[in-house]
Amino acid sequence: MSSTREIDALIDMMAKLPGLGPRSARRAVLHLIRKRALLLTPLADLMQTVAVTARECLNCGNVGTSDICDICTSEKRANGELCVVEDVADLWAMERSGVFKGRYHVLGGTLSALDAIGPQELRIPRLIDRVSTENITEVILALNATIDGQTTAHYIADQLDGQVTLTSLAQGVPIGGELDYLDDGTITAAMRARKSL
Amino acid sequence: MSSTREIDALIDMMAKLPGLGPRSARRAVLHLIRKRALLLTPLADLMQTVAVTARECLNCGNVGTSDICDICTSEKRANGELCVVEDVADLWAMERSGVFKGRYHVLGGTLSALDAIGPQELRIPRLIDRVSTENITEVILALNATIDGQTTAHYIADQLDGQVTLTSLAQGVPIGGELDYLDDGTITAAMRARKSL
Ligand SMILES: [Zn+2]
Ligand SMILES: [Zn+2]
Repeated sequence: MSSTREIDALIDMMAKLPGLGPRSARRAVLHLIRKRALLLTPLADLMQTVAVTARECLNCGNVGTSDICDICTSEKRANGELCVVEDVADLWAMERSGVFKGRYHVLGGTLSALDAIGPQELRIPRLIDRVSTENITEVILALNATIDGQTTAHYIADQLDGQVTLTSLAQGVPIGGELDYLDDGTITAAMRARKSL
Repeated sequence: MSSTREIDALIDMMAKLPGLGPRSARRAVLHLIRKRALLLTPLADLMQTVAVTARECLNCGNVGTSDICDICTSEKRANGELCVVEDVADLWAMERSGVFKGRYHVLGGTLSALDAIGPQELRIPRLIDRVSTENITEVILALNATIDGQTTAHYIADQLDGQVTLTSLAQGVPIGGELDYLDDGTITAAMRARKSL
């Protein structure tokens, strides 16, 4: 490499981010260097700010800039509905849809025998605590339709059985989804949950 | 979005980098926030350093941290061979292969009637200057096999005709390349340039 040490180090670091690789990291870094004043310096400043201000909500695990996040402090969101997700990215996806008006609980992963992740490694004890202290009437288990996701959903359902209404997201064909591109499991689930017109 | 202003701004900025999009930007930013001390702060520092130190070589257009890059200052690279590339990323790709021992000239793009990019918008005058002052014996036109790339190669070849040996990279099937995955043009070029065994 003819680029010097710091540039190589920057490329290496960018290449390790999820979704990037060496090639896109090189392209991104060249782009940033070309637009140094317009992009690289502001991006560095913004990262520095976020590194100082970002934190996980102590209540739900959402990422924000205060100890308790905006959703947990908003009284409007205290409608008794609690949506349990695996990851902050899932919470953001739900918020973009705008369909859910209650609060969230971010587990921070799924139970996994293989990776030795038990309830204590996730935010499950805190979830059980919240259900009994926050006047929760419905817990929506919005976990991924993976084996670990469903195992985790069943475990949580067992723990909360009888205390609240438990629901999960409907499974089926995505809007605009072409059958040809769907995996067998999705088609099977959609067929079993078919509705009369 | 429940994330706060700076986090949203960081995601927006990352999403505009080449090779990323909104989804990978969100994943990257969440990853960085989770590993704030280990990744986000060092990355911000490194970007700040590169923003201050990075510059284009005044001679060849390579990116480095000095006014004249390492390759242009190295006497070992003054073997009379000059490899002309469109972009710094191409120079880096050549350097990774380790096959070329001479110097480079980065055009900074290709001639394009559509985008009104003429020789003056590229580093072409400087190239012609270098050929006559740097004891160049061979100019290797390593431009992309696109219409604009080849137009640019022909233009440069015309300008330098009679002054130096002009060559270009061989075209053909990439090593490990499966014919089934190659476009027609590559197969045609490889067939026409076939060699006897
Ligand atoms: Zn919260
Ligand atoms: Zn140079």
